[in-house]
Amino acid sequence: MFVDRLIESVKVKKTHVVVGLDPRIEMIPDFIKEEAFRRKGNGVEGIAEAMYLFNKGIIDAVYDLIPAVKIQVAFYEAYGIEGFKAFFRTAEYAKSLGLIVIADVKRGDIQDVAKMYSKAYLQNPLFDAITVNPYMGEDSMVPYLEDVEKFGKGIFVLVKTSNRSSKDVQDIETKKGSYVYQEVAKMISRLSKMTVGKYGYSSIGAVVGATYPFEAKILREEMPRCYFLVPGYGAQGATAEDVVNCFDEEGYGAIINSSRGVIYAYRSDFWKEAYSEYEYGQAAREEVILMTGMINNALVKRKYIAS
Amino acid sequence: MFVDRLIESVKVKKTHVVVGLDPRIEMIPDFIKEEAFRRKGNGVEGIAEAMYLFNKGIIDAVYDLIPAVKIQVAFYEAYGIEGFKAFFRTAEYAKSLGLIVIADVKRGDIQDVAKMYSKAYLQNPLFDAITVNPYMGEDSMVPYLEDVEKFGKGIFVLVKTSNRSSKDVQDIETKKGSYVYQEVAKMISRLSKMTVGKYGYSSIGAVVGATYPFEAKILREEMPRCYFLVPGYGAQGATAEDVVNCFDEEGYGAIINSSRGVIYAYRSDFWKEAYSEYEYGQAAREEVILMTGMINNALVKRKYIAS
Repeated sequence: MFVDRLIESVKVKKTHVVVGLDPRIEMIPDFIKEEAFRRKGNGVEGIAEAMYLFNKGIIDAVYDLIPAVKIQVAFYEAYGIEGFKAFFRTAEYAKSLGLIVIADVKRGDIQDVAKMYSKAYLQNPLFDAITVNPYMGEDSMVPYLEDVEKFGKGIFVLVKTSNRSSKDVQDIETKKGSYVYQEVAKMISRLSKMTVGKYGYSSIGAVVGATYPFEAKILREEMPRCYFLVPGYGAQGATAEDVVNCFDEEGYGAIINSSRGVIYAYRSDFWKEAYSEYEYGQAAREEVILMTGMINNALVKRKYIAS
Repeated sequence: MFVDRLIESVKVKKTHVVVGLDPRIEMIPDFIKEEAFRRKGNGVEGIAEAMYLFNKGIIDAVYDLIPAVKIQVAFYEAYGIEGFKAFFRTAEYAKSLGLIVIADVKRGDIQDVAKMYSKAYLQNPLFDAITVNPYMGEDSMVPYLEDVEKFGKGIFVLVKTSNRSSKDVQDIETKKGSYVYQEVAKMISRLSKMTVGKYGYSSIGAVVGATYPFEAKILREEMPRCYFLVPGYGAQGATAEDVVNCFDEEGYGAIINSSRGVIYAYRSDFWKEAYSEYEYGQAAREEVILMTGMINNALVKRKYIAS
């Protein structure tokens, strides 16, 4: 079962951090681009090769530290066929080193179409879980729910997203006095009863932005069985203190994603004097260790304050 | 400008029908599968080839009748790289015959990610418009809005979808007494002011399900500048009478999609005695002509009743 495998890896590796592999060609070190363009030319094939080589360097540097990687498909989809090849190669390489692979695809469509998305991702051995958009309602999620059961996979449904405009739809006040994101949470919470593993969590999880700690507190209570996939840490502005509300009292229940903050750590003010572009993997590793420490400390501190 | 090109094609071809190219391998005529598998084997390459050949036969049979095709990416994405190749080849072939190509991708993500989706589709000359999911709010749509302006493309934002569970989120009652889909409609209507063409319509359109004629009437008034892309006709149960509410008083403002009803017409009770599987294109053509007549008649009838 997906969620049990996830939690067990979190326990072994003692971190809640997952790394987002969102390669932007303009942010990839020159030495990688030169190598990739020499091999495949400087068209889309070369760009896709550079993305893969860059990801491979990150994975090599952090795979022993983290339970999972999140791969945002759009960064690859932008480069068509060659981009998708780099997407699949990246997933394959991460899998080969024992990592859980979350495909951040945010798909959502009518049931017959959702079946095809589920075939593409949940029925594909390269991926362990996907992100899903709930706007079309419960029947649009049925194929994913079926494949979660059948193939031991997971989904994370968008509930409260990390961006500023998430308020436009998600924070509409309902007649009952709740917000739309809470109604979505109730729906997902109900569905999450289907697949509860040995730690009390379900393979039906939720996306809850680190940038909304107040909402996270509400959602942690409304979705007691849902593991949270939490974007927005670092580059989007959220801190370790902001994410503690996503966790249960035992300090589980959430994985915190960082993409830019980790993979481009070598360019950050904090690390750029210590690491050159050739050491981008080492900088990413240091950033994962730092982020792990900050989140684990914030969780300890919260426990201390609460007790 | 996308919407002007669309309306002009609707006027010239005198139909509001668009055809959805959603190839399901089990529904494709055997003679095509045999040909494709002989060429490329019976793995994913053969399946993708069969999908393309099937689509080509449909396009050849109907391109002179209709303004646009809608290609649902999930049917291709399910087959990975080879599936995507069939997707792009289909778009290319449709374009080569002068059709407008709508990529039904329903993407939605934070702004930095949406930029990459926009690069994948709106910046690609193969596609004229895409469908977009609004759950993440206005900032998640900004890259599409920019590319609509810059490249003369279009978007159709999900407002009220055709499936039964669309009620789960879209029909939540708000504190103001409206429904969530109306609040989404207001947001899209406001954004649609950006790009209004010579017929008073915007290249920022909306997806409104044919299965909800009551809601369509409300939305037609709330989104006066938005062209509607209307799914749900035929296989999903909606009739010509159901879709008239999607149109303005002049009989414009909506394109009505049929996928299964047209492309698998040769298997339908209505056409299967008249056409063999070898004549699946001819059956699709007859169905487009029939559907065009029924919708145009329903529009004339409405006008007659109203006047």
